[in-house]
Amino acid sequence: MKEFDYINIKNIKKYKKESNYSYSFGAFPTLELINNKLNELIFVLISSKFNNFNVINDIKSKVSKDKIIFNDSLINKITDKENIYIVGVFNKYNMTLNPNKNHIILDNPQDMGNLGTILRSSLGFDFLNIGVIKPGVDIFSPKVIRSSMGAIFSLNIEYFDSLNDYKSMYKDHKIYSFMLNAKNSLKNVKFDLNKNITLAFGNEGSGLSGEYLDKDSIIIKHSNKIDSLNLTNAISIALYEVYSQVNNK
Amino acid sequence: MKEFDYINIKNIKKYKKESNYSYSFGAFPTLELINNKLNELIFVLISSKFNNFNVINDIKSKVSKDKIIFNDSLINKITDKENIYIVGVFNKYNMTLNPNKNHIILDNPQDMGNLGTILRSSLGFDFLNIGVIKPGVDIFSPKVIRSSMGAIFSLNIEYFDSLNDYKSMYKDHKIYSFMLNAKNSLKNVKFDLNKNITLAFGNEGSGLSGEYLDKDSIIIKHSNKIDSLNLTNAISIALYEVYSQVNNK
Repeated sequence: MKEFDYINIKNIKKYKKESNYSYSFGAFPTLELINNKLNELIFVLISSKFNNFNVINDIKSKVSKDKIIFNDSLINKITDKENIYIVGVFNKYNMTLNPNKNHIILDNPQDMGNLGTILRSSLGFDFLNIGVIKPGVDIFSPKVIRSSMGAIFSLNIEYFDSLNDYKSMYKDHKIYSFMLNAKNSLKNVKFDLNKNITLAFGNEGSGLSGEYLDKDSIIIKHSNKIDSLNLTNAISIALYEVYSQVNNK
Repeated sequence: MKEFDYINIKNIKKYKKESNYSYSFGAFPTLELINNKLNELIFVLISSKFNNFNVINDIKSKVSKDKIIFNDSLINKITDKENIYIVGVFNKYNMTLNPNKNHIILDNPQDMGNLGTILRSSLGFDFLNIGVIKPGVDIFSPKVIRSSMGAIFSLNIEYFDSLNDYKSMYKDHKIYSFMLNAKNSLKNVKFDLNKNITLAFGNEGSGLSGEYLDKDSIIIKHSNKIDSLNLTNAISIALYEVYSQVNNK
């Protein structure tokens, strides 16, 4: 059980960024954890209030008995919200991007709920490799995991110090950056699907800095009645467009 | 000042669905209120902590002096969150859809934050008329207003008892319903832009019921790794596609 060997289960605490382990809250994200990252699972906590026996049997069929713990007070100790009846406890793990697949770059994402939603859309549109330019929020925060509905356990996510750092490691990807001052309307862009491509997005507050702007940069046109689209919506629209082009090929 | 004539300002309370008035929290939504629905404005509350004098001067240039009230304790009384320094108090008003414009139908939307985000996307993609099939959340809840960033004040929103009720009032609109069991992929749909069209969406939990399914129903294709797209993302994608088709015409 790796570093949990020396952690007394009674000392288990609310999540901190410094922890070596984190939590999936809720049945759905925890099943995603079990189905995709079983090796990282430390144990599953189940509340006595949880009465979906199909889920319990599903967990029992996949997780060894000694890793399934029925304990209400432990759950209360590590969650803020009520109505959490299942918690997965897992070792954080390192990931690197697959160099032969399309990527997303998120430059310093700030909102954990948004990041989770973005991860779920990424999975839905087959972008399984996501680079995060630092600082950015903590991808293993339970809030990200929960709002991703466990999608995070099917993705590769890697942090980079800077855009240049990313570029030097993944030289052959063609980067399309999404910016309000770009000239190409998404609707008219034919993505270069013979190459691996990278879609780059800024954060909720400030968008991407000038270093991203080039002849391939893209704008998603909208009316002048709003300043900008919501970030998760903008990313979903971009992913939808690429996914459609890939699958019509 | 309509019904506020008989409300003592000292008795002002946290928002209730039954109230005849509601609140815009924050400078940006309140400016949208002032710019678009000045007739419904009862007064503007400004906190002594608010120090953006450009905004204060902007408000003073548009709102009569007797409607601008500097009062911190009133603001604290009606808000839950800290960091709210400007509040618009306004009479709720009735709206009807413009029969000569495109519509959106939201069938029983459940989440106030999502609804606000949807309203903002609607404004951004020039869908200014939105029908809500009851029950649905309260569109005038401060939470909806805030997450719409004040977009609500530029839109017409009308409640309907049922889909049939809507259809009987807006007979000539061609309805495109978004459903997971539809056959037409959004990517291949050419919207009938010679008519007025209506895009219909279900809620976060259950999607649209069978009464919506017909030969024009649309699915937004995604991989089978997720059950469904996030509702606000799905709606944004659909609006983007129509907006692009309208503006390429």
